[in-house]
Amino acid sequence: MNISEKALLLHKQWEGKLETTSKVHIKSKEDLSILYTPGVAAPCKEIAKDKETVYTYTTKANTIAVVSDGSAVLGLGNIGPYAAMPVMEGKAALFKEFGNVNAVPICLETQDTEEIIKAVTWIAPAFGGINLEDISAPRCFEIEERLKASLDIPIFHDDQHGTAIVVLAGVINALKVVNKDKESCKVVVNGAGSAGVAITKLLLTYGFSNVVMCDKAGIISRNTKGLNWMQERMALITNPSQEEGSLTDAMRGADIFIGVSVPGIVTSEMVASMNPDSILFAMANPIPEIMPDAAKSAGARIVGTGRSDFPNQVNNVIAFPGIFKGALEGRARQITDEMKLAAALAISDLVKEDELNEENILPDALNVELADVVAQAVKRYI
Amino acid sequence: MNISEKALLLHKQWEGKLETTSKVHIKSKEDLSILYTPGVAAPCKEIAKDKETVYTYTTKANTIAVVSDGSAVLGLGNIGPYAAMPVMEGKAALFKEFGNVNAVPICLETQDTEEIIKAVTWIAPAFGGINLEDISAPRCFEIEERLKASLDIPIFHDDQHGTAIVVLAGVINALKVVNKDKESCKVVVNGAGSAGVAITKLLLTYGFSNVVMCDKAGIISRNTKGLNWMQERMALITNPSQEEGSLTDAMRGADIFIGVSVPGIVTSEMVASMNPDSILFAMANPIPEIMPDAAKSAGARIVGTGRSDFPNQVNNVIAFPGIFKGALEGRARQITDEMKLAAALAISDLVKEDELNEENILPDALNVELADVVAQAVKRYI
Repeated sequence: MNISEKALLLHKQWEGKLETTSKVHIKSKEDLSILYTPGVAAPCKEIAKDKETVYTYTTKANTIAVVSDGSAVLGLGNIGPYAAMPVMEGKAALFKEFGNVNAVPICLETQDTEEIIKAVTWIAPAFGGINLEDISAPRCFEIEERLKASLDIPIFHDDQHGTAIVVLAGVINALKVVNKDKESCKVVVNGAGSAGVAITKLLLTYGFSNVVMCDKAGIISRNTKGLNWMQERMALITNPSQEEGSLTDAMRGADIFIGVSVPGIVTSEMVASMNPDSILFAMANPIPEIMPDAAKSAGARIVGTGRSDFPNQVNNVIAFPGIFKGALEGRARQITDEMKLAAALAISDLVKEDELNEENILPDALNVELADVVAQAVKRYI
Repeated sequence: MNISEKALLLHKQWEGKLETTSKVHIKSKEDLSILYTPGVAAPCKEIAKDKETVYTYTTKANTIAVVSDGSAVLGLGNIGPYAAMPVMEGKAALFKEFGNVNAVPICLETQDTEEIIKAVTWIAPAFGGINLEDISAPRCFEIEERLKASLDIPIFHDDQHGTAIVVLAGVINALKVVNKDKESCKVVVNGAGSAGVAITKLLLTYGFSNVVMCDKAGIISRNTKGLNWMQERMALITNPSQEEGSLTDAMRGADIFIGVSVPGIVTSEMVASMNPDSILFAMANPIPEIMPDAAKSAGARIVGTGRSDFPNQVNNVIAFPGIFKGALEGRARQITDEMKLAAALAISDLVKEDELNEENILPDALNVELADVVAQAVKRYI
């Protein structure tokens, strides 16, 4: 049985992956009267007096919503809120398993930006944070920005920032291996959707200065036509030499390639045209922009993918459980750039110097320290 | 320490009452690749092909939302969505503990009827049912009716129907004890809010014909001014003799009094004016319309209250876990009057003939058979 067949069978047997359980078992009339009426009126009254005590008396303090409209699910595209459910449940299960964060899947029967913003705003009281998931670009940018501006709980679009944090952690360690520094590197980010934009922003925040973004029509410059508003904004802060041309042109002389685009778009020739000791993160799913073997043969020194069957898996699960664990424990109102950088550095530091090599630039997703280490790092910057 | 003090302390220690847990523990890369990417794509694709399979592959099949706007919480009134959280968490805990139904508290940052309807509509894909809770009348009627008409999952306002089902179960058994039949009884329902309306409707559906509703201004008749649209509707189907006057007038010669109103409003004189073998359910919280001892002294034969420290506790927890357990197991699209009647009869039947007496007309809320028996009864009418 392959993974798909196994997944189908097991999802059926499990009848879904989540359960909502009571921390307290009800065995007596007194249990009932404390957990529910009349005793429950006491914490209600306290919260009515002081709203902040909702963090003391309820699960809001450690519960997030995993919110999607199903518009950009995995590599499957716009499959809608029902078909998105297994992913949101899986994500929620990972939050609990790795970060001990309670997470509730909320799949929305609307793909309208205004309605998504309203829906999240209205359900916010029960949650200590909102993890946006698999919402297509550029709507995801506006939804996240406006919710961050209006709500007092952390909002985090994992497809953007989770990916960006793990990519940055991998890049930091890859540069140690090849002994280059960020200031002198040219980075090409291919794919100007949610992940590509967030990766680029975080690389710039970290201190890279020469980042060139590409999308279907090639290099993004200030002259590029047909950009959405976020891509236009990115054109102003990337591509310092105002290069123009194709992805092939962009990759010539580049040190780092970050692909969040489509399978097979990178050729051996393109890799061969990069600077020596090149680093490629080819994260198209399930088939990378170039297969690791081909990239290596063409001269790449370090190759990462999104897959678990090759070395250097760039997997969001390395970041998101610890990010929210830290944000919730520290009662953060936002997840800031400083918190993201701290998370990336903490993740990269988890690979000890004597373990760091071409095939081991990122910690294992199953590393039991991971979420705690990330959470501690995040908390220091709240 | 009294119950309130204990509840406050324990809610703090528990840090809320709920947890969202993974049914599956992630111990290997393969677990991860089945529970999440890439394996999770397989059930997503199946659901994209056939939406109904969301019931096969996800927790939707056994998960409900407990939705409130915090506008009518317990006896505390409009305390808002944050202060309502402990009640919704408690309710969710009870759903799991008694009915093995996963329940997620959703406290809404809006009290606008249209917005509540939109919010519930948008979040519906993740849930197999919606339990509306503590939403004030008459908005609750419109919200429930419109959601029932538009959504394909069961919608159940527990303050209405849960209460009505348990009251009817208690009334059925009380009539057995006093040896009266429903056709000849006069029933007075005091309080024309969500519970009073639903109780009255269910009593009529069951076969009572002489039900008189009262509210703050006294008996509700077709001439009463200032009624809301639901009360106007009730005026058309109740009070067959078109009585007018006060609650005192209504109770004269009544056989059954159902109070969902305010503490202490019923006097000994009013009880004394009822027919012999009178039945009183005085369910104002935390202080009943008349204390059981006073009612008994004035001639009442059977008295029930909402409290656990007197006999005959009329407690919704007797009904709601089993109602949703049955509705979800049977994949009901609605919770119909037939299902509610079946639940009430099943609950009343749980008190065996030799255990039935003035002080024991309802099964114990902790009775472990309860939810299953109710669920089986409900399922027979789907």
